[in-house]
Amino acid sequence: MKKSITVILGDGIGPEVTEQSIKILNAVGEQFGHEFTYDYQLMGAVAIDETGNPLPDATIESALKTDAVLFGAIGHPKYDNDPSAKVRPEQGLLKLRSSLQLFANIRPVITYPALSHLSPLKPEKMEGVDFVIFRELTGGIYFGEKKINEEKTEASDLCSYTRPEIERIAHLAFQYAARPERRKKLTLVDKANVLETSRLWRKVVQDIAPSYPDIAVDYMFVDNAAMQIIVNPKQFDVVLTENMFGDIISDESSVLSGSLGLLPSSSVGTGTVLFEPIHGSYPQAAGKDIANPIGSILSAAMMLEHFQMNEEAALVRKAVAWTLAQGFVSQDIDNVNNYGTSVIGDLIKDFI
Amino acid sequence: MKKSITVILGDGIGPEVTEQSIKILNAVGEQFGHEFTYDYQLMGAVAIDETGNPLPDATIESALKTDAVLFGAIGHPKYDNDPSAKVRPEQGLLKLRSSLQLFANIRPVITYPALSHLSPLKPEKMEGVDFVIFRELTGGIYFGEKKINEEKTEASDLCSYTRPEIERIAHLAFQYAARPERRKKLTLVDKANVLETSRLWRKVVQDIAPSYPDIAVDYMFVDNAAMQIIVNPKQFDVVLTENMFGDIISDESSVLSGSLGLLPSSSVGTGTVLFEPIHGSYPQAAGKDIANPIGSILSAAMMLEHFQMNEEAALVRKAVAWTLAQGFVSQDIDNVNNYGTSVIGDLIKDFI
Ligand SMILES: CC(C)[C@H](C(=O)O)[C@@H](O)C(=O)O
Ligand SMILES: CC(C)[C@H](C(=O)O)[C@@H](O)C(=O)O
Repeated sequence: MKKSITVILGDGIGPEVTEQSIKILNAVGEQFGHEFTYDYQLMGAVAIDETGNPLPDATIESALKTDAVLFGAIGHPKYDNDPSAKVRPEQGLLKLRSSLQLFANIRPVITYPALSHLSPLKPEKMEGVDFVIFRELTGGIYFGEKKINEEKTEASDLCSYTRPEIERIAHLAFQYAARPERRKKLTLVDKANVLETSRLWRKVVQDIAPSYPDIAVDYMFVDNAAMQIIVNPKQFDVVLTENMFGDIISDESSVLSGSLGLLPSSSVGTGTVLFEPIHGSYPQAAGKDIANPIGSILSAAMMLEHFQMNEEAALVRKAVAWTLAQGFVSQDIDNVNNYGTSVIGDLIKDFI
Repeated sequence: MKKSITVILGDGIGPEVTEQSIKILNAVGEQFGHEFTYDYQLMGAVAIDETGNPLPDATIESALKTDAVLFGAIGHPKYDNDPSAKVRPEQGLLKLRSSLQLFANIRPVITYPALSHLSPLKPEKMEGVDFVIFRELTGGIYFGEKKINEEKTEASDLCSYTRPEIERIAHLAFQYAARPERRKKLTLVDKANVLETSRLWRKVVQDIAPSYPDIAVDYMFVDNAAMQIIVNPKQFDVVLTENMFGDIISDESSVLSGSLGLLPSSSVGTGTVLFEPIHGSYPQAAGKDIANPIGSILSAAMMLEHFQMNEEAALVRKAVAWTLAQGFVSQDIDNVNNYGTSVIGDLIKDFI
């Protein structure tokens, strides 16, 4: 098969981790006779530096044409503490999400029993935790009108949702919960006791639920969810939520296993799908060859599955499991005995 | 001294836990020669049932006149799953917050070393955790314009903030961080890479910071904060944040110690101060005499301190510590050997 991939290295550790994934994809290509072509494009702080624009048109055009996007990370501290910066890296990612209509960010939260010593939680809390968060990604307060008056004394952000925006991701989440390997439970996380948009979410999910009679639905306020994720994470199967709440609870969930650096994600929409590790740009580590490349490599594995290359994806996962089992891990996993980003990439490549 | 207190029992377990606090206050009154008078008022689901209004005017009038408000809990499931309910219990609390201008909710997050077995976190994560969250309570998306169209296909909530709204709570938080017992660090939690209101928060805090040269300020995105609270809670001293983020991260933080039922809070503003345990109405437990009264009792202790009755407050705290040490605890603390809500209240009263 031939597949074209838009590669967005992005900021911080983005380039070095994504480079490992490219190695692996090439190894998979050779092994299975596929041809992957890469179109490198800019986004984020690096794009601002080079072009003045956090998301150049060329990047959007490429992403719309190719079969998938593989993305590294975004963000640079020089923009974070300047509240009056006119352009900022994150605008690039937000615009890409809306340009590609990537309306659902899907994040599996799984545990690696062998790494339970890394978890901040007690082992009995973590055993068997296995849930997936569906976060709405192109609506809500992220994309509503933003205002600031000239004197900089008043600011506002509008959170809005329409029924179709909620329906499309809700159907995805229900279908996912119905998969044979899932436990047939869907939890909507909202703040329906306070927000009008949350009441609309609850209404839409209640309206849709009867078409999925096998799925048990429950509703949880976001403040309670933030507690339950720590106190009893096993209770969750598929979690559905809006954009801002999803940002918070998916990051919260991602640290449960203690191995943030290992977790992949995909963002799906009406066309091209985007794959990225869930970690951020981690600027302090950039260029030091210490970042964990597994989050990106497992994102590439998700991409292979998306291409229906299931055997290929399984091989990548097997290679990853092998490095973990052998202790070929980066600093975040083992502070004493660890390997560099590129060495781990090479080992996984060689295994394949 | 004479002090008048508006007592709002509220919903669920609210009445039974608050009743214990009244016992304790009376015992303190007798012991130290104070006279506490109580004006019982309605709010929440119980107020809707009795008057049709989640916050009758009489409650506001009472609260404006008295020296403090002691509040139980709010919320009832019969309203939660009806997205089109016209009145809901929580409206009462929100209106009370705005009527009394309770702009800052203050929540200490402390750990009880003796209860570390209850924490979902590993002991080494929890040892020495001691921070205080300042959550803005009368602005943001909670109080912005809410809209829903007639066809119920589009809804919105407006999040807005003004500079003075941010300044007043920021000053409180800075002053608190400067107290001798604190570690002189303030962390602003926001989402300045996406939200205009967050950028205003960051700007205002940056502008104020130079007047508190002893306080080290840092800035953290809310998604990262949701991770850091689990991964490294010791890093926090005073945390400042807006209303919605505060709702989420303060509940998240409250479960770290494993003893949610023990935690008090106060909400301060321009006049009367409100004290309440941080737990919710927990309707499944209502009327069963199993709820933990300590959160409410320690809220009453905070109230005593607010009345400058420091010795009295210390005695209540000592009594509480004694029951915990003796194992006179409720079901949430010890599933096997436990005591009823009112027995614990009596024991603390007798100690005093
Ligand atoms: C970088 C930032 C804009 C982004 C978000 O908030 O969506 C990130 O935190 C994420 O979750 O992908
Ligand atoms: C009951 C609800 C409206 C309230 C809030 O969200 O503020 C509660 O969760 C709290 O934190 O006091």
